[in-house]
Amino acid sequence: MVNPSPTGGSRAVARCDTLGAPPFSDMEGGLYRGYLTPAYAAAQAALAGWMQDAGMSVRRDAAANLIGRYEGSVPDAPALLIGSHLDSVRDGGRYDGPLGIMLGIEAVDALRVSERRMPFAIEVIAFGDEEGSRFPAAMLTSRAVAGTLGPESLEVTDAQGVALADAGVDVATYLTAARAPGSTLAYLEAHIEQGPVLEAEGLAVGTVTGIASQLRYQVQVDGMAGHAGTTTMKLRRDALAGAAEMVLAVERIARDHASDLVATVGRIEALPGAANVIPGKVRFTLDIRSGDASRRDRAAEAILDRIAGIAETRELGITIERIHDLPASPCDPMLMDLMDAAIVEAGQPVRRLVSGAGHDAMVMAALGPTAMLFIRCKGGVSHNPAEHVAPADVDIGLRVMLGFIERMGAVHVG
Amino acid sequence: MVNPSPTGGSRAVARCDTLGAPPFSDMEGGLYRGYLTPAYAAAQAALAGWMQDAGMSVRRDAAANLIGRYEGSVPDAPALLIGSHLDSVRDGGRYDGPLGIMLGIEAVDALRVSERRMPFAIEVIAFGDEEGSRFPAAMLTSRAVAGTLGPESLEVTDAQGVALADAGVDVATYLTAARAPGSTLAYLEAHIEQGPVLEAEGLAVGTVTGIASQLRYQVQVDGMAGHAGTTTMKLRRDALAGAAEMVLAVERIARDHASDLVATVGRIEALPGAANVIPGKVRFTLDIRSGDASRRDRAAEAILDRIAGIAETRELGITIERIHDLPASPCDPMLMDLMDAAIVEAGQPVRRLVSGAGHDAMVMAALGPTAMLFIRCKGGVSHNPAEHVAPADVDIGLRVMLGFIERMGAVHVG
Repeated sequence: MVNPSPTGGSRAVARCDTLGAPPFSDMEGGLYRGYLTPAYAAAQAALAGWMQDAGMSVRRDAAANLIGRYEGSVPDAPALLIGSHLDSVRDGGRYDGPLGIMLGIEAVDALRVSERRMPFAIEVIAFGDEEGSRFPAAMLTSRAVAGTLGPESLEVTDAQGVALADAGVDVATYLTAARAPGSTLAYLEAHIEQGPVLEAEGLAVGTVTGIASQLRYQVQVDGMAGHAGTTTMKLRRDALAGAAEMVLAVERIARDHASDLVATVGRIEALPGAANVIPGKVRFTLDIRSGDASRRDRAAEAILDRIAGIAETRELGITIERIHDLPASPCDPMLMDLMDAAIVEAGQPVRRLVSGAGHDAMVMAALGPTAMLFIRCKGGVSHNPAEHVAPADVDIGLRVMLGFIERMGAVHVG
Repeated sequence: MVNPSPTGGSRAVARCDTLGAPPFSDMEGGLYRGYLTPAYAAAQAALAGWMQDAGMSVRRDAAANLIGRYEGSVPDAPALLIGSHLDSVRDGGRYDGPLGIMLGIEAVDALRVSERRMPFAIEVIAFGDEEGSRFPAAMLTSRAVAGTLGPESLEVTDAQGVALADAGVDVATYLTAARAPGSTLAYLEAHIEQGPVLEAEGLAVGTVTGIASQLRYQVQVDGMAGHAGTTTMKLRRDALAGAAEMVLAVERIARDHASDLVATVGRIEALPGAANVIPGKVRFTLDIRSGDASRRDRAAEAILDRIAGIAETRELGITIERIHDLPASPCDPMLMDLMDAAIVEAGQPVRRLVSGAGHDAMVMAALGPTAMLFIRCKGGVSHNPAEHVAPADVDIGLRVMLGFIERMGAVHVG
């Protein structure tokens, strides 16, 4: 059995903290690290040193991902990939992404210290663009690695007018970052939960069952605008009062579907939008997610039915447009069992939970089975400078990852 | 008894229509007439001709209001003022304001045709700025006439950077537009209702009891922003769901206060305002009006209590700021009785209603008793090119105004 360094979790956290300020951040007083920016290059240089210290050979692929490789005992066997992303949102947190990379490095370092080789190579991959915070794209570099990116996706330009082609990569060879079919044993990603579930239940870690399927709608409610002073209450067809009833129905129906179902109205606009005018038109977004697409669809049907009923009762017009319909990306059931076993071995209760947020893992599923480990974050806060993880939780996460890797070795050696 | 011309109502409407397009409008394809613009000057020129045709002497006061005077039989007796405003909102309707002026001119013309003089002079006054659509001010010119305007209010500039002082008036003498105390017998204003009450009850006209008192609040609800995919329903403190419950409470409490009470949430904003983020903060406006200030205050108290209760139950923060507290401006009870009698004589049912919107009459109350007559408008629509009145309703309005004037004469001759 490979024991992690007792300081591994603290070191992973400290390295994320180091990368949280200039020169590893493109902003003063906070963290923004865009794909291919000076801060990105500085962070890759630091990361390359840490990978080498852990016993890995380091390369940069055609999509400017940084990859460290720790060879296995069986030459040319498909590799276990451990990854997450190096980029951040603007004024974001220090752990969303980097923590998963640092844990991969710590896991390999523990193998090196124990002089252990697995029957497969381990590659730690730091993806360059998951957030889409610089170019109008998301998961650009994991899509390049997974071979699911089309050349048209490379024709993007950042807000300063810099084209991807002029940002430090060769777009002519970019798609050669795709991994050869059959070269990937599995993809493992550790990530902060970005939600409050583990914290609420007093748990350090959880096994992710998959990335939720998502439905997104744009709803428009049409009533009748009118003077707020001259239109009696009973003669109104107030689009905002109708929308308010709909927002509460969304909340109630989502709550009634106990389980992982969530539904959110995040954006709302009332027109004409003056304090002395009854709103004649309201537009709002509706986002519905669940790890189970049929549960999500049943909830969506119930919500849309209720919205239509409210509109009818209030004599309001209603227009509903479906914006997205993203399928769920389930994690591999056998790998979930291995993760649960590693969690038990680390002395922790097993908890399976769905990821409501998207991750590179959903893209990497095109190459092979995926596994994800969530680590508790304070208050469920993410995409915010207040993002925080406890080093003790990260120690547990590292122990679980090593247990997972050992179990993978036991399965694949035989 | 003075009979109006059988074509008086139609002519009043036709004149409003004439003024609804260039050169009497500052925009092509619709009506915008700002204070002191070229369209304003052209409309004053047309109006001056119509006033002269009706037997009036015409002058322009220091605030650029146009005033036509029809002398009475008793020299120097306080005058009856009949007025409304010549300016419009951008892309507005043709009757909001001008109709009251045209009815004043028609009433005087009917007296001229009948060779009648009242025991008081009648002055028809076309105010220049009621809407505040050009300068950041409202009721600037009626406030000048009422003597309630301070010199600091003249330091205004339009959106093109033109100061009032450079727009065609002499600001040094502007405040001399104030009428001498004791020179005003009463102020009468006819206006489209700008609301749907008369139409809903099948009535052509109504006696206005006063202009509603108004309370305006800015409410802020503080919850906790979070990822829409990763925060389970029961762990949310969604500021928008809370605000939605508050919007419905506003509606319910206002409906429960049968009477003239109205309450409106016209503007709402959810932050950060992304489809995939649970709103952490919501700001909305709350406007509460009633002809009776104590009724308004009781409703406001009930609403604010309920908002606080919802915030407490949902563990949301709440901040409420009072933006305005405008007192009611009641019409004169004796003049309301005269108006009702004139309505009955015109063969119409009596209906008293409060004006939820502000009018020059609320300013003119500083000079003496005020009376207002509302005329039905189609669908309650105003501040919109679709604004419409039926000439037959305007005929009734004209008959009522003449009956009102005659009754004023009967009261004041004795």
